[in-house]
Amino acid sequence: MKVAIQGELGSFSHEAALRMVPSARILPCAQSREVFDHLDEGNVHGAVIPIENTLAGSVTVHADLLLERTVFIQREFHLRIVHNLIAAPGVKKANLRRAFSHPVALDQCREFFVQHPAIQATPFYDTAGGVKHVIAQNLNDSAGIAGRHAALVYHGRILAAGIEDDKRNFTRFFLLRKRPRILPGANKTSIAFAVKNVPGALYDALRVFAGRRISLSKIESRPMRGHPWQYVFFADFLRGQDKLARAALLELANVAEMVKVLGIYPAA
Amino acid sequence: MKVAIQGELGSFSHEAALRMVPSARILPCAQSREVFDHLDEGNVHGAVIPIENTLAGSVTVHADLLLERTVFIQREFHLRIVHNLIAAPGVKKANLRRAFSHPVALDQCREFFVQHPAIQATPFYDTAGGVKHVIAQNLNDSAGIAGRHAALVYHGRILAAGIEDDKRNFTRFFLLRKRPRILPGANKTSIAFAVKNVPGALYDALRVFAGRRISLSKIESRPMRGHPWQYVFFADFLRGQDKLARAALLELANVAEMVKVLGIYPAA
Repeated sequence: MKVAIQGELGSFSHEAALRMVPSARILPCAQSREVFDHLDEGNVHGAVIPIENTLAGSVTVHADLLLERTVFIQREFHLRIVHNLIAAPGVKKANLRRAFSHPVALDQCREFFVQHPAIQATPFYDTAGGVKHVIAQNLNDSAGIAGRHAALVYHGRILAAGIEDDKRNFTRFFLLRKRPRILPGANKTSIAFAVKNVPGALYDALRVFAGRRISLSKIESRPMRGHPWQYVFFADFLRGQDKLARAALLELANVAEMVKVLGIYPAA
Repeated sequence: MKVAIQGELGSFSHEAALRMVPSARILPCAQSREVFDHLDEGNVHGAVIPIENTLAGSVTVHADLLLERTVFIQREFHLRIVHNLIAAPGVKKANLRRAFSHPVALDQCREFFVQHPAIQATPFYDTAGGVKHVIAQNLNDSAGIAGRHAALVYHGRILAAGIEDDKRNFTRFFLLRKRPRILPGANKTSIAFAVKNVPGALYDALRVFAGRRISLSKIESRPMRGHPWQYVFFADFLRGQDKLARAALLELANVAEMVKVLGIYPAA
């Protein structure tokens, strides 16, 4: 199975993809949009994207693309995020002046940079991309900050392991397919919906779930692109494709202005 | 009045600060945390921070800090975001190879980079910081992407104006004070609250507002730091400090696990 990921080989997306599809052949993409394009054009069988991090919050560009494109969430996976300082073989930690990584990862290793004032946090487009860069260029004063999978892929050495400030750092990934296919044991549904801009509209929408004792595990609003100060809601609820969930979605379609089922899948 | 901002002089935060407090003396801070520290320690009278962009979504680090720290929102302001390509005097657009800016700003100028493949989008910690850098270093192959205020502050030349993809690009800023002071005409309230992790808990919380026909202009969930997969809700409603709003907040305090009033201020 060929799977597109957002990020380089060795990234957390790569690791999450292999955890969900162990035999996957990986197609790395620099841009999120490319990942969805490849899936749309049938160049890959699936795509793996990060959707939410317990510290940094939602990956908003992916929420927007889930709403825009015709894709279906088939699986979710929670990956524990461990950041490591990785450099070319032979490089010494004492000689480091720069550490390249994605801005979110740099922000999650603040304490490390306080402890190592000689090393400058340097934003890079990707975590594993930073490791690839310092090793390809054989830099002796620079390292990358990434998951240990990046050290494996690029033959780097881990100079410091687990340098993230907060160990309660998890990223939720989705495996996307082009067409809906609901796996056995699917007990969680992700939807997006919009309500009229009137008092109580969201309350009326939530009644659909509360009235049926359906548990919302997440609800989040996102600005609607091109409609300043209007919002789309992304919600997850803990039911699969059963009669009760179907009735809830039918009723929601009546009270909301728009409803889209993004996926039905087994809860991680 | 002395006001701390997150970002450099010439940044959008600087512009927003002057629009809310025309006579402000500005203290620029690299880190969001510093802004709150200065306010807390009484080094400044106020602080101006971006909280939400209509395209990029919430500035999550600021939502977290509003919850953590003892501050009070006194004003909000909506700034129209216009991105400009700014370089040192004498630099020609045809010679440019790099454009420095904040990753969010670069992402909002994608079309410009498609039209100008010779110019590489290069992440920098701040929009105005990129302009400061190219002018201080007198780079002849690099520009910054920032608001026109940055050209003014650093004596740069605007080589291309309004290069953002989407003109419906606004950022909402808050003016924060250490102590609560509610301005005349205050008709909007921002709160944070958490509900029990049981079905219908959010619905019960929203009943407090819907039952009183109080309009929620925004509701957004954020992961709770240190509690993976639990959420805090940030909500705005269109009432000031009147009897109805007070009754709603009292009732919310009964049904929610935590309620914090972040500010009461005139709607922009």
